[in-house]
Amino acid sequence: MSAMSATPKKNLMLFSGRAHPELAEQVAKHLDVTITPQSAYSFANGEIFVRFEESVRGCDAFVLQSHSAPINDQIMEQLIMVDALKRASAKRITVVMPFWGYARQDKKHRGREPISARLVADMFKVAGADRIMTVDLHTAQIQGFFDGPVDHLFALPVLAEHIKRTYADHELAVVSPDSGRVRLAERWAEILGGTPLAFIHKTRDPRKPNEAVANRVVGEVDGRLCVVIDDMIDTGGTVAKTVEVLLKEGASDVVVAATHGVLSGPAPERLATCGAREVIFTDTLPIPDEKRFPSMSVLSIAPLLARAIHEVFDDGSVTSLFDGNA
Amino acid sequence: MSAMSATPKKNLMLFSGRAHPELAEQVAKHLDVTITPQSAYSFANGEIFVRFEESVRGCDAFVLQSHSAPINDQIMEQLIMVDALKRASAKRITVVMPFWGYARQDKKHRGREPISARLVADMFKVAGADRIMTVDLHTAQIQGFFDGPVDHLFALPVLAEHIKRTYADHELAVVSPDSGRVRLAERWAEILGGTPLAFIHKTRDPRKPNEAVANRVVGEVDGRLCVVIDDMIDTGGTVAKTVEVLLKEGASDVVVAATHGVLSGPAPERLATCGAREVIFTDTLPIPDEKRFPSMSVLSIAPLLARAIHEVFDDGSVTSLFDGNA
Amino acid sequence: MSAMSATPKKNLMLFSGRAHPELAEQVAKHLDVTITPQSAYSFANGEIFVRFEESVRGCDAFVLQSHSAPINDQIMEQLIMVDALKRASAKRITVVMPFWGYARQDKKHRGREPISARLVADMFKVAGADRIMTVDLHTAQIQGFFDGPVDHLFALPVLAEHIKRTYADHELAVVSPDSGRVRLAERWAEILGGTPLAFIHKTRDPRKPNEAVANRVVGEVDGRLCVVIDDMIDTGGTVAKTVEVLLKEGASDVVVAATHGVLSGPAPERLATCGAREVIFTDTLPIPDEKRFPSMSVLSIAPLLARAIHEVFDDGSVTSLFDGNA
Amino acid sequence: MSAMSATPKKNLMLFSGRAHPELAEQVAKHLDVTITPQSAYSFANGEIFVRFEESVRGCDAFVLQSHSAPINDQIMEQLIMVDALKRASAKRITVVMPFWGYARQDKKHRGREPISARLVADMFKVAGADRIMTVDLHTAQIQGFFDGPVDHLFALPVLAEHIKRTYADHELAVVSPDSGRVRLAERWAEILGGTPLAFIHKTRDPRKPNEAVANRVVGEVDGRLCVVIDDMIDTGGTVAKTVEVLLKEGASDVVVAATHGVLSGPAPERLATCGAREVIFTDTLPIPDEKRFPSMSVLSIAPLLARAIHEVFDDGSVTSLFDGNA
Amino acid sequence: MSAMSATPKKNLMLFSGRAHPELAEQVAKHLDVTITPQSAYSFANGEIFVRFEESVRGCDAFVLQSHSAPINDQIMEQLIMVDALKRASAKRITVVMPFWGYARQDKKHRGREPISARLVADMFKVAGADRIMTVDLHTAQIQGFFDGPVDHLFALPVLAEHIKRTYADHELAVVSPDSGRVRLAERWAEILGGTPLAFIHKTRDPRKPNEAVANRVVGEVDGRLCVVIDDMIDTGGTVAKTVEVLLKEGASDVVVAATHGVLSGPAPERLATCGAREVIFTDTLPIPDEKRFPSMSVLSIAPLLARAIHEVFDDGSVTSLFDGNA
Amino acid sequence: MSAMSATPKKNLMLFSGRAHPELAEQVAKHLDVTITPQSAYSFANGEIFVRFEESVRGCDAFVLQSHSAPINDQIMEQLIMVDALKRASAKRITVVMPFWGYARQDKKHRGREPISARLVADMFKVAGADRIMTVDLHTAQIQGFFDGPVDHLFALPVLAEHIKRTYADHELAVVSPDSGRVRLAERWAEILGGTPLAFIHKTRDPRKPNEAVANRVVGEVDGRLCVVIDDMIDTGGTVAKTVEVLLKEGASDVVVAATHGVLSGPAPERLATCGAREVIFTDTLPIPDEKRFPSMSVLSIAPLLARAIHEVFDDGSVTSLFDGNA
Repeated sequence: MSAMSATPKKNLMLFSGRAHPELAEQVAKHLDVTITPQSAYSFANGEIFVRFEESVRGCDAFVLQSHSAPINDQIMEQLIMVDALKRASAKRITVVMPFWGYARQDKKHRGREPISARLVADMFKVAGADRIMTVDLHTAQIQGFFDGPVDHLFALPVLAEHIKRTYADHELAVVSPDSGRVRLAERWAEILGGTPLAFIHKTRDPRKPNEAVANRVVGEVDGRLCVVIDDMIDTGGTVAKTVEVLLKEGASDVVVAATHGVLSGPAPERLATCGAREVIFTDTLPIPDEKRFPSMSVLSIAPLLARAIHEVFDDGSVTSLFDGNA
Repeated sequence: MSAMSATPKKNLMLFSGRAHPELAEQVAKHLDVTITPQSAYSFANGEIFVRFEESVRGCDAFVLQSHSAPINDQIMEQLIMVDALKRASAKRITVVMPFWGYARQDKKHRGREPISARLVADMFKVAGADRIMTVDLHTAQIQGFFDGPVDHLFALPVLAEHIKRTYADHELAVVSPDSGRVRLAERWAEILGGTPLAFIHKTRDPRKPNEAVANRVVGEVDGRLCVVIDDMIDTGGTVAKTVEVLLKEGASDVVVAATHGVLSGPAPERLATCGAREVIFTDTLPIPDEKRFPSMSVLSIAPLLARAIHEVFDDGSVTSLFDGNA
Repeated sequence: MSAMSATPKKNLMLFSGRAHPELAEQVAKHLDVTITPQSAYSFANGEIFVRFEESVRGCDAFVLQSHSAPINDQIMEQLIMVDALKRASAKRITVVMPFWGYARQDKKHRGREPISARLVADMFKVAGADRIMTVDLHTAQIQGFFDGPVDHLFALPVLAEHIKRTYADHELAVVSPDSGRVRLAERWAEILGGTPLAFIHKTRDPRKPNEAVANRVVGEVDGRLCVVIDDMIDTGGTVAKTVEVLLKEGASDVVVAATHGVLSGPAPERLATCGAREVIFTDTLPIPDEKRFPSMSVLSIAPLLARAIHEVFDDGSVTSLFDGNA
Repeated sequence: MSAMSATPKKNLMLFSGRAHPELAEQVAKHLDVTITPQSAYSFANGEIFVRFEESVRGCDAFVLQSHSAPINDQIMEQLIMVDALKRASAKRITVVMPFWGYARQDKKHRGREPISARLVADMFKVAGADRIMTVDLHTAQIQGFFDGPVDHLFALPVLAEHIKRTYADHELAVVSPDSGRVRLAERWAEILGGTPLAFIHKTRDPRKPNEAVANRVVGEVDGRLCVVIDDMIDTGGTVAKTVEVLLKEGASDVVVAATHGVLSGPAPERLATCGAREVIFTDTLPIPDEKRFPSMSVLSIAPLLARAIHEVFDDGSVTSLFDGNA
Repeated sequence: MSAMSATPKKNLMLFSGRAHPELAEQVAKHLDVTITPQSAYSFANGEIFVRFEESVRGCDAFVLQSHSAPINDQIMEQLIMVDALKRASAKRITVVMPFWGYARQDKKHRGREPISARLVADMFKVAGADRIMTVDLHTAQIQGFFDGPVDHLFALPVLAEHIKRTYADHELAVVSPDSGRVRLAERWAEILGGTPLAFIHKTRDPRKPNEAVANRVVGEVDGRLCVVIDDMIDTGGTVAKTVEVLLKEGASDVVVAATHGVLSGPAPERLATCGAREVIFTDTLPIPDEKRFPSMSVLSIAPLLARAIHEVFDDGSVTSLFDGNA
Repeated sequence: MSAMSATPKKNLMLFSGRAHPELAEQVAKHLDVTITPQSAYSFANGEIFVRFEESVRGCDAFVLQSHSAPINDQIMEQLIMVDALKRASAKRITVVMPFWGYARQDKKHRGREPISARLVADMFKVAGADRIMTVDLHTAQIQGFFDGPVDHLFALPVLAEHIKRTYADHELAVVSPDSGRVRLAERWAEILGGTPLAFIHKTRDPRKPNEAVANRVVGEVDGRLCVVIDDMIDTGGTVAKTVEVLLKEGASDVVVAATHGVLSGPAPERLATCGAREVIFTDTLPIPDEKRFPSMSVLSIAPLLARAIHEVFDDGSVTSLFDGNA
């Protein structure tokens, strides 16, 4: 027999881009590994360079990067890391993007538009990604944009647990800030034990033809503590307006809960002053101190990511982890 | 100079599978072409054979097939037609599927499920399709499943025109039969001139813990003619229940409108007897006589398809046609 | 060192579509595994849904489906299973199709035809199949349609063993029912110990110009027990006619042997009454009771499939198994 | 409107590798074009360099190369030409290979073999070929190895016409030199007007167990002029033996006809002296003077290729040309 | 005949990202077209949105974007434009990147590095680009990174023309600032009429072992006006040091010429004060006023791009344009 | 639980084409494995056939072939071996090509040329190669032509060690034979301890306008032992001319060192008589006895290849091996 034989072993290695080192550190701590050391820097014109300081041959690589602002730099850095891993003979490459950049552009709203969320999937595929792990997609259909396994984790249990613990003795209602998130609100209502549901309907009132668009609350909110939910909050305009309308319509109080705190421009100011009693996020995206305000709570997503990474490495059954969804 | 020169011409050729010949005939009539003759038959074990009776070299091929029951046969026949066109040197192949089969399986609802709508897109790609034309996708994100242009047509104007003409003098409300179609209902409400909105919320009532799931109407419907909308109606159960609930909640009357009449099993019976004043479909799927009932109206989608095909062939601007969406 | 290490293990998991559960059960029994439980059902319009009830992460998956009637449903179900396995992180996916559907359409017989056997290969590739295992292809070239390993098993030894045991004391001749299977007949003749060979030549007799096509026996069959062989029998017309001609030409008796019993429409009747002493199949395709008749013998292909699956899982040498052919 | 408009024109350009310049010249003459001038030379280590001397932007390129010995050089030269055309913006590239190299290795005869005919198809695809045109494939299934249109031309009418004209007054029989070409022989028999059929059966005679393999004639040849047919003749051993056996079995005379004259090593000698009255080839492969002998006839394939190229360029109907097969 | 016929026309449409609108305007002016109007804006988190305001169906699209800082945004915007064009049925998409971003990372300098220039090529391919047009690649091999035609234009004639006109009466020498650009210097020397050549050799002097690295001039520069050439100048450090060394070694004067003015950080200051008499760039990258200094000359690349685009659209012979290189 | 479990093992198997069996034997010896036995032969027309004599299922295959003359045969044989390994279920296939054929054609030098080095990369990819291992690429950018890991080994340490040992007491200068290898010469100069550098500049002397092209030495070589370096030597013309010029310019002696001895046609004669004291190669390519001459030294590359193969199999860190470059 002519061959040389050996018993293979498998190694989990964790890699982190520069977008959100705190999250990577937390995930590493929960996994009890250290982040693989690497050189990464940006040239003055913005070109990014990455080099790993240890051999990565044959490893099971998990590449964590938050798609936070400046988002194109973060995406490009992660792509370059994947390319370097592919060319250095990593065995399997799982891209961990807690927030999937460009997820909002998941369809052509009108003609001659891109579908950027698919473009992102294809770019990671062509760079060499075998799998994607992500949290709370804008629409679940985005999973289908990637030609391979996507582990879609849910932050809902983390957020809802906080709500249930904090507001146990309130009469709750779940409110979607627009007509497109009612399904998500329904899932929240169920996990909170069957609370009523409402959403904000943007409309022209046909009976008052000369008036501008109005935000009508569809559903009952009177006297209840309203939980306004969303997958992400960007400029905060819609949510702030929603809080205002709900309070006007008789809500006893309002709490806002969203997975991804994009928090662009005026968002911190708007959310801090909109009248919401508490605004809750996870740390899928970094929330720097200057964007924080007293009524904001930030829950850690690291335990969820670490457990999922561990299960994927182990080829274990992660059904319970993903709440029956993976 | 060594070359032989010529001026190219382009030829639109229309091909039809065996699923819905009436629709193909109507489209051909509107385009003023004839359907390319072909031999197509099924062996006893179900294998399908197709052969075109005319040269198709260099043509701009439009291959029309309704994904009606038995849907796997219809899809396979269309795939085989695409393969034969590719191998016979058609220049461009546009798959026209008025109803995109398996569109409901557009995500993993739970773990270890397929994303069959993506599989369908990939199968047409690998068979040789350059483009897809379709009507009213279950979710618009499905466009992104195909790696190429998708012309996504809307039947909403056709259906809404009928509603507006027929019920001009009624106080209308638009109702989504579940929490996932509220966005679509909102679009209907806008096109109908700013009508109120409601949806059916499936819930356990937290105040009556021992009771089963209830269908609660969220939004006002009292005294109004409710237009229950959906993209497709399959078994009709949800819609029939919706009609019942709306009438109980004081709706003056109910009309149902959906693009795709899948109409499986008990659907005709249920819809005929649920109390709806009118049930409106387009003919994206064939609706045989035995599934028709007196209160059903079927609007022709052929003019829309024919105009879109013509525009695509002409490389014209189809913005107006697709309502600003292509 | 920053990594987490582990020793990988590999798990063989067997999956079965709904086409031929008996065969899957037999294979599972020979492998001493149980079929992975799954939910599979068809919607009224024919859409198929599949979900696995156990984690399949990292497994070495073997997906067994017979491509029996209704064949497009069987193929689509198997494709959907492969898609679900891919998205659920199976490590390797081997498609086991004892009969390769559409194998007869392996070339363009005339212009503007599909090559459906290649389309089938490409569909499984795009769905996520890494390998294919199959039995007795219509033409061996079909292996080359798939871009990856194809384990091509031969039922010939199973069938020939039966013939040799049963008809040890007869003077045999091997007969191909048409000019395209003579090579296969030659292989049979060799395995049976060098028997004479004949085939049926469909021709117009040039000396009788006004007569219709005739079936001429080329080769000697007089006084011999003729073994008519083929890879599959569909409607049975050609074979029945062959038996008739052979008996007329003086064959002492006729036995028919084929791997795949497609047995469409009139086939059982024709075969039962054509005068053949015995008609032998394997169970690569299900043969329901109503298609069986007294002179039919059905040999089990399960032991062969189970051994091949085991060898593939073990990366063992399967040369002997496949008779020097894999 | 912002665009610049123009009317496209299309240009047929013919390119020729260095394998068979006479054939290319003949094709060019029939098309009334000149072969595009190019620099092509081989470095001393065998590396091939090609550069076109005229712009090829936007052209409809036909790249002709015979896969003659030394075959790997011929294939590589054609691949390099395709690569250069792709990178120089040719609009469409049709590879014309009158003889498809490695066609004999179209399946794994035993385990651990390549399927080189598929490899050739894939190499041309990856180099940039859009289409393939070829003559008389070893097996028609090879068409399915290429993911795109294959124009499969038949030399049979050219050869048969010659036979019919030359041997009009003879009693003919068509003979396949082995069991794998009987189908082809049947097609010949039909085109020659329904002649009898025979083939050579290589066998151990079961009645003489200690004797070596024998060649038995199956079918009647006595007193007839036998036309031994094949797609290609390589070393000529099988055919020479066939002629010998036929004459021994009483054939009045023997004529050999094959499309591709590979004619390796001892072939010319064998064929010249085997007793055949005439040996007929086409010039799909170059047949140098030193391989020719008095009883050899070489028919030109150039008119067929030229007509097919013209039709492909014109997107015309080539059904008649390809005898109902393209 | 069943088809609808028409004569195709082709339309050149020019698209511009937001990186360098002045260059796009100049190119448009030379082409006598207008830039296709589009909406393009960036969300606060950096996500880019693009929508074209006119139909682009069937057009021959040229998408111009300078890969200037912030380079990842510019690349992503161009990718998104390509994706949108693909999905809106543009017929052919040519990506015009006067400077190919990440061109410097064209190989692994050490282990575990990416090859980002290839990644860029693959990202444009997967987004839908058919062709790339670029100017003065860092290394010509980068052309081979793209699987399709690359039109590689040379700014050398533009720059050299300026040198020849301005310094006609000087004794010139061409100097490469390091050992990697000597080939380019040789090409310059030839176009300037056979001037002497030199380069800067970074070395430790073996005779002075304790000294640091020194820059040695290899070749003669004494008394000559030295033209220091490069493809791009980023921080300007190497070039400034080169000028200094050359003056010290007796050069009569120094002129710097480079195609791409990346000009990061201290570059303007360094170049303005290094002692060079003139520093010459093209405008492949935008050079804002604050980076300009009195001795800088910026030559327009727009005429070259416009002519190349026109030729590509026309399928003309661009040999002369590209100096025998396309 | 339904699965069958096992512990995987991995097997290194070494395969060798017929180009350079001595090198393969040496590599096998250093690895302490035997070369996997295979049948390989060429048909008279040049078609190559390969079959492995042992099972290769699941193995980690290393396929060694020198791309020596006749190079197209060597490449095709290696491709066919890869295809056979893919179809026989090898787990991972590493192509070992000590010399990358067609590496010189790594860009379009002028228009309408191929990029054959990329074509070679793509052909191996499509055949089934997962990785490539090679030595001293003509340009390092060629790594980026392959979509996967490329282990790029350097022979420089092997060659330089020989020089240092042999010529320890000489004053050395490193000379590039043309302007394109100056970077390589600089790397040599550094590894030899900071020697001076020179290169040959092919030029027309502007002061003697009517004279032909001259070879000018740029840099100082007077009184030194010049080491003329290159990656490969083909016909030897440039190198022989370089030696001649150097001696004329006062070099005390000349030694030639190159990794790949292509040595076509007149090369041995030229090199033997050009005046060089020693000409050093490695055996990446076979150098038959008739090409050897007294002053030639051939160093073995086998230890380097064997160590690299072992490291790749072991997923070890090969940084030291590749001198910090892999």
